Amino acid sequence: MIPLDDRGLLLGDGLFETVLARAGDLVALEAHLERMGAGCAVLGLPAPDPAAAEALMRQALAGAGLQASRAAVRLTLTAGSGGRGLDRPADPAPRLFATAAASQLPTTPARLVTSSIRRNADSPASRLKTLAYLDNVLARREAAQAGADEALMLNTRGEVAGAAAANIFWIQGEALFTPALECGVLAGIARAQVMARAEALGVQTIRVRAQPEELARAQAVFLTNSLIGVRAVSVLDGAAFAPSPLAEQLAEAMA
Amino acid sequence: MIPLDDRGLLLGDGLFETVLARAGDLVALEAHLERMGAGCAVLGLPAPDPAAAEALMRQALAGAGLQASRAAVRLTLTAGSGGRGLDRPADPAPRLFATAAASQLPTTPARLVTSSIRRNADSPASRLKTLAYLDNVLARREAAQAGADEALMLNTRGEVAGAAAANIFWIQGEALFTPALECGVLAGIARAQVMARAEALGVQTIRVRAQPEELARAQAVFLTNSLIGVRAVSVLDGAAFAPSPLAEQLAEAMA
Repeated sequence: MIPLDDRGLLLGDGLFETVLARAGDLVALEAHLERMGAGCAVLGLPAPDPAAAEALMRQALAGAGLQASRAAVRLTLTAGSGGRGLDRPADPAPRLFATAAASQLPTTPARLVTSSIRRNADSPASRLKTLAYLDNVLARREAAQAGADEALMLNTRGEVAGAAAANIFWIQGEALFTPALECGVLAGIARAQVMARAEALGVQTIRVRAQPEELARAQAVFLTNSLIGVRAVSVLDGAAFAPSPLAEQLAEAMA
Repeated sequence: MIPLDDRGLLLGDGLFETVLARAGDLVALEAHLERMGAGCAVLGLPAPDPAAAEALMRQALAGAGLQASRAAVRLTLTAGSGGRGLDRPADPAPRLFATAAASQLPTTPARLVTSSIRRNADSPASRLKTLAYLDNVLARREAAQAGADEALMLNTRGEVAGAAAANIFWIQGEALFTPALECGVLAGIARAQVMARAEALGVQTIRVRAQPEELARAQAVFLTNSLIGVRAVSVLDGAAFAPSPLAEQLAEAMA
């Protein structure tokens, strides 16, 4: 339970990570904790102690009886308790907690629609997993109402940013493309893993500032995040994409 | 206390109102509850029951021993408990709570600096008081680090939007100006009161999409919100503004 004066609750002042657990193995835990620490530096908060964070996550897994399962473990850091208003106390004491839930791989490719809500490329929060995630919630809600699985979000400059809860890649010719971080994109851990795996297969990933037309012209499109690994996109705004041998290879490598 | 699966806590999925209490009188309560209801409609959440909301706010005032004081009463609505991920449960059950704290009028004019963080004019959240308020927290933090009291926020199109926790007005010639709601601006209750009071004094308020240069050229600038009423701005990015008889008149009418 969290007190009513928590700044994460009141203002979205905090960060989270979602880590895949496979039979008790917290996948890429170090990268997740490093990213949370880097986010804390941007927000001006002390980073959590990695050992304490891991202990909380293992407790959450055990508490949910998911040590032997495929599970999502969410680590949440709030800026802690504070007084009224926007200003943090002089010496903020972050609050850290973890929760765990079963997580299955999706069995179908994703159908996407472009959201009317854009990612704010003029805020550092657009490159972090913050507790102020309402735009993503609303974009996903819009997608669901349109019968889609996920929302494609452009940024406020009209460039491709990503999906509401995933990074996006597309294949064109011999190359793989993904939006540059400056587009208002989370430095996804699965994104980095996919780029490394593609490189091992001899495929360059070009980080770009791309207009949505470039995505629409792609041969194949896929999403990545820590829980789903690689998920093919079958449809974007009604236009279909073919399955891609490269995307399937990357999906298998990440599964 | 709030459970760990609350979507307001985890995702900023919710809204708040900050109401001024003067010796137990909840100022403009009806307007605040109406605005929260309208925000719920945008977010797709059921609106709170006004009587229940008022009861919670009065309890919070009494609990803090502030029935006879000048106080800020914050009403917070979260999207309630939910499962993992962005998607709300089919039938969300919002959670409502109130807190109260003493609130003094500032005794000095505000010094502003322009924030590097912009308001996302391409999200409905920019026109609401949502629990995803981190951009405002970071903008205020930036201002404080620059020795200022408040942050001027432009929107992602580079237009004047407002301050991190206030609407902004400026005086030029015979007219009063304030950013149009489409600039990514909260429909402030003090903003509306000031416009009505100015009209009674024979002064039109022109709602504009303005570049920051227009603000810099103004004769006077002031901020409004429910707690401070009207607060003059003395300095913006190092450039000073003169006190304004109109701003003082409006401040007195709102005090």
